[in-house]
Amino acid sequence: MGVSLKDVALRAGVSIKTVSNVVNDYPHVTPAMRARVQQAIDELGYRPNLTARHLRKGRTGIIALAVPELGNPYFAELAGAVIDAAARHDYTVLLDHTAGVREKEMLVCQGFRAQVIDGLILSPIELETEDLLGRTDTAPLVLLGEREYDAPYDHIAIDNVAAARSAVRHLAGMGRQRIAFLGARRESARQPAHLRLQGWREELSAAGLPHDGSLVATAAGYGRADGAQAMADLLDRDSRPDAVFAYNDLQAIGAMRVLTERGLRVPEDIAVVGFDDIEESRYGATTLTTVSPDKQAIARQAVDCVVQRLAGAPTAEPRRVRPGHDLVVRESTLGRRR
Amino acid sequence: MGVSLKDVALRAGVSIKTVSNVVNDYPHVTPAMRARVQQAIDELGYRPNLTARHLRKGRTGIIALAVPELGNPYFAELAGAVIDAAARHDYTVLLDHTAGVREKEMLVCQGFRAQVIDGLILSPIELETEDLLGRTDTAPLVLLGEREYDAPYDHIAIDNVAAARSAVRHLAGMGRQRIAFLGARRESARQPAHLRLQGWREELSAAGLPHDGSLVATAAGYGRADGAQAMADLLDRDSRPDAVFAYNDLQAIGAMRVLTERGLRVPEDIAVVGFDDIEESRYGATTLTTVSPDKQAIARQAVDCVVQRLAGAPTAEPRRVRPGHDLVVRESTLGRRR
Repeated sequence: MGVSLKDVALRAGVSIKTVSNVVNDYPHVTPAMRARVQQAIDELGYRPNLTARHLRKGRTGIIALAVPELGNPYFAELAGAVIDAAARHDYTVLLDHTAGVREKEMLVCQGFRAQVIDGLILSPIELETEDLLGRTDTAPLVLLGEREYDAPYDHIAIDNVAAARSAVRHLAGMGRQRIAFLGARRESARQPAHLRLQGWREELSAAGLPHDGSLVATAAGYGRADGAQAMADLLDRDSRPDAVFAYNDLQAIGAMRVLTERGLRVPEDIAVVGFDDIEESRYGATTLTTVSPDKQAIARQAVDCVVQRLAGAPTAEPRRVRPGHDLVVRESTLGRRR
Repeated sequence: MGVSLKDVALRAGVSIKTVSNVVNDYPHVTPAMRARVQQAIDELGYRPNLTARHLRKGRTGIIALAVPELGNPYFAELAGAVIDAAARHDYTVLLDHTAGVREKEMLVCQGFRAQVIDGLILSPIELETEDLLGRTDTAPLVLLGEREYDAPYDHIAIDNVAAARSAVRHLAGMGRQRIAFLGARRESARQPAHLRLQGWREELSAAGLPHDGSLVATAAGYGRADGAQAMADLLDRDSRPDAVFAYNDLQAIGAMRVLTERGLRVPEDIAVVGFDDIEESRYGATTLTTVSPDKQAIARQAVDCVVQRLAGAPTAEPRRVRPGHDLVVRESTLGRRR
C-alpha cells in the first residue's frame, strides 16, 4: 500500500522512467537493470496500477470466457478457476454463455464486443472449423474442450480418449460385463462425446467386451434430465447393462436418480461412472466415481495463452495443451463402506 | 434481416432522421408519428442495431452482475436468468464474483470498471450500509438478496421471513416436534440467515414448539461441506432434532449426506427442508423439499430497475421489490412413493 513508482526509483537508484519501462515490460532495458528494479519492487512490495497500465496500452483488462451453460457446475467451477487465474494477471473476466448454439458461438468469436475485450476463451459445442477460418477479429482466441478444429488457434483439452479408457478399464477391472455409454449426441460424429465414445469403444474392444449399439444411449443434451431419460431408455431394452459410463456427471446423477426410482442399487445392480468431478458428485447418497479433469490447470493455461499472445508472438504456432486428469473412485463403483 | 432505417422511413413516409428519433427514444416525437414509425418497424421486422445505439449514447451495453459465488448453483441459475433478461434489452452481462468479501464488494460498488459498465446488480454478503452511503460512482446500482440496507438504492428480495415460516409450518404440520435451523452465520445478527432464522423462530413460537439455541447449528459458509459439518454438530448433541430447516439447498444436501453416512433415514428419522430450489434438489436419491424463490422474476425486475434508471429518473425514490416464492414439497419431508 502506498508505494509509488518514485519510491521504487529512489530505492533502486534509477530514474522513474526506467522503473516504468521495467513495470511495463518495454524492451531495451538491460537484464541487469531489470533485476535491480525488480529487487527494489520486491523489497518495497510495490504493486503497479495494472488497470491504468492496461488502458495506456489501449486495452481494457478484460478477457471474455464463453461457455455453453452456466447452469452446468463444471462450467461454473471452471469459470471460478479462470477468474482466479485471470486476476493473477490483473485481468477481469466477462462471462458469457452461448447455450451451445452455433450462431451465438460465431457471434462471440467474431468479436461483437471487440471494443471491450482483449482476448477470448471459448468452449464451443456446435462451432465448425469453417466458422473459425472465417474469423476476422484479431483478439487472441483460445479454445477449450473436446471438439477438435483444424484452425490456427491455441486449444486446451485433456486427453478425452485416454480419460474415457481409464473409466471403462476401472469398470471392466471390477468384473462388469455389459458396460453402457450414456450421453452420446444424437447428431453427428463431430459433436462432443465423440472422443469419450471412442475411448469407451477402444477399451471395451481391448478387454474383449461388447460395445455394440445396444449399449449406447443417446441424449438430447448435457443435463440431469437428459441423463435420466437416457438411463430409462437403457433400462427399457431387452438386455440390461451392469455398468454405465456417462458423458458427464450431471447425466450420471440423472441416471442414478432413475435407478433409485426403479428400485435398482448402485453399484450392486448397476455401477455408474461420470466425468467432470463436480462438487455435487461427492455429496449424493451414493457418491460418484468420476473422471476429474485438472480444472485449475485448464484455467491457468487458457489465461496464460491469452496473456502470452497479448504480450507478443500473436503469429506463433498454435499450441495444443493437454492438462492432466485422474479417475476418482467412489461409492458408485466401490459401494459404501458400512 | 437486411431491413434498414431507410426502408422503415420509406414505408412510413417519413425522414430517416424521424425514424432514428423514434428508435432512440428521443423526446419531441409526437405520439402519432411514433405510432406510424412503429407500425412500419413491425411490418418490416426491423431490428435496430442496439449495440451502436448504446455507443451513440456513450454507453457500453454491459451490465455487471456481482454475486458471492459462481460455484453455488443458486447464483449460477440466477445469473442465467439475468443474462436472458438483459438480452431482451440488448444488454450483455459482465459476471463477477466477490467471494462474499467486503473489500471486493466495495470495490465492485465503487465502480472500478466505471468505463466499461452501464449499471450494476450486486448480491452483497458483508457490505455495510456505510459502504453504500460512501459510494460516488453514478452508474445505477441494484441490490439483491436478504441483507437490508438503509441506503438509496433499489433492492430486490423475496420475503425471507414469510418464506422461512412457510417451510417451518410445513414441518410442524407434519407433526415434527424438534425442528432445527441449520446454517446460521457465526458472526453477527446483521449477516444473511438473520431473516430466515427470524422466520423459523416466529413460526415455532406461534406453534408452541421449542426454538432455543440447542436447535440452532451455525456454519462457516454456504456450501455442502458447511451443511455437513453443521449437521454432524447437531447429531452430536444430547437431544436429536426430528427435522432440519437449512439456510440453503447446498447446506441441506450436505446435511443429508451426513444423515446417510450415519445410517439415519430422510424423512423417517429426520425430515429436511432447503431453500433456493436449485436443480440438484430434484435429483438426489431423496429429492429435497425447498423454498423456491421466483428467480426469473428476481432477474427480470433487477434488469428492469437498471434499464429504467438508465432511461431517466435516476433520482426517483429507491424501490423495494418483493418477487414471489413457493414451498416445493418433495421426498425429504413426504417420503418416497413406492
